[in-house]
Amino acid sequence: MSPHGDKSDAAEEALVAETEKRPISTILIVIAMQTEALPVVNKFNLTEDPDSVFPKGVPWIRYHGFYKDLHINLVWPGKDSSLGVDSVGTVSASLVTYAAIQALQPDLIINAGTAGGFKAKGAGIGDVYLACDVAYHDRRIPIPVFDLYGVGLRQASVSPNLQKELNLKIGKLSTGNSLDMSPQDEASIVANDATIKDMEGAAVAYVADLLKVPIIFVKAVTDVVDGEKPTAEEFLQNLSAVTAALEEKVTQVIEFINGKCLSDL
Amino acid sequence: MSPHGDKSDAAEEALVAETEKRPISTILIVIAMQTEALPVVNKFNLTEDPDSVFPKGVPWIRYHGFYKDLHINLVWPGKDSSLGVDSVGTVSASLVTYAAIQALQPDLIINAGTAGGFKAKGAGIGDVYLACDVAYHDRRIPIPVFDLYGVGLRQASVSPNLQKELNLKIGKLSTGNSLDMSPQDEASIVANDATIKDMEGAAVAYVADLLKVPIIFVKAVTDVVDGEKPTAEEFLQNLSAVTAALEEKVTQVIEFINGKCLSDL
Repeated sequence: MSPHGDKSDAAEEALVAETEKRPISTILIVIAMQTEALPVVNKFNLTEDPDSVFPKGVPWIRYHGFYKDLHINLVWPGKDSSLGVDSVGTVSASLVTYAAIQALQPDLIINAGTAGGFKAKGAGIGDVYLACDVAYHDRRIPIPVFDLYGVGLRQASVSPNLQKELNLKIGKLSTGNSLDMSPQDEASIVANDATIKDMEGAAVAYVADLLKVPIIFVKAVTDVVDGEKPTAEEFLQNLSAVTAALEEKVTQVIEFINGKCLSDL
Repeated sequence: MSPHGDKSDAAEEALVAETEKRPISTILIVIAMQTEALPVVNKFNLTEDPDSVFPKGVPWIRYHGFYKDLHINLVWPGKDSSLGVDSVGTVSASLVTYAAIQALQPDLIINAGTAGGFKAKGAGIGDVYLACDVAYHDRRIPIPVFDLYGVGLRQASVSPNLQKELNLKIGKLSTGNSLDMSPQDEASIVANDATIKDMEGAAVAYVADLLKVPIIFVKAVTDVVDGEKPTAEEFLQNLSAVTAALEEKVTQVIEFINGKCLSDL
């Protein structure tokens, strides 16, 4: 199932080096919610795939199109087939990322979406962050080494040029499957030194790392986790406005990437 | 990517009905830990796949072999490539289940493994349960309908004949990514009315449901969650002995399945 399956390690290393110096061609944008995805879909006139690259029966949706030198693919896990809500969280995000990498062989992944932010770490509503690393805050396995596996720390492409040119904030991202934050989650988020909190990032990073695809995280703050308002209320209130800020930054990221090699990021 | 991708819904329904009446041929056993997997691998003389059906670079391992009328496939997510511990939890389990279903098209999935049990619900160390339904206890999304999506309740194949013949206990299974149990987890487990608690079941059930493969859960109790001893200590102490009980019951399940149709279970 791998395009490199029959190559030796040396040949593969050479291929990786070559890929680094070749202009980025195919990008995969992974977004968890339709409301977050549609502004980007509309901006780049992406169209829904009539012949899905995914197996029959799964709700996952791929939009794609061409912009300048890029083949842009945007996937979201779709609506839950029985409940009709967006298939948020780590399991759906990891599955659709895995299946999309297998089908599309992207040069680069962009995981874009909304996030909670911590004002104690400088985050405010509408801020857009580039995550420098990601980890989980809801996988507590108190057995030596398993504890580190549970945290699942992964580095993201730090992209200093990208950060400088787009004037994005930089922060650590922590991921868990709950929208709220329990005291145990909070302790893990503090241990992760996180500025922003989402429900998918660490899982998308895990899959990208497994299949050796570089990844960038672009996350826009919809709610202040350590603020006065309840998260769910603030999240729903700001979701639509903040996705506009997200679309704007994703557009700038795509403009920046166009014509560049991975080694230029 | 689907074998039924070009068939109409009516033709597919006919195919499902036909499959129900055909003897079960290919089974997929999904197990999270090597210690849990190896007794079953040895019992059925399963061998590791020299040409992996999985992409290059992933740690997932498939053992397979033939026993009576069955093609037995056992997959486990393997050791984390940087940390060397078993890749436990929902993300790895969902990915390896998805990839194995795509590659092997099994008639039936058996998710076998160890679990915590609640003595208040009648569970004791070494008990082996057949789960009647599964849900998550660590996906709290306090927005209407998203809350139900978070719980992610799925029915398992209840298999009354199997339960009667093998004298298995029946109980509800609750899944979360932590080995321990926070007060929030506990409240959700009570709401789920769960007798046993694991770290993969609901995610494996989600993938099986997405791709319409029937699933059975066989879970052996390694630790009493509402008992005196700390979970991690009790889990490690009992892991090896309890996996023997698990192997015995999985063997009985396989003997029972052999020659039967899905509709006989």
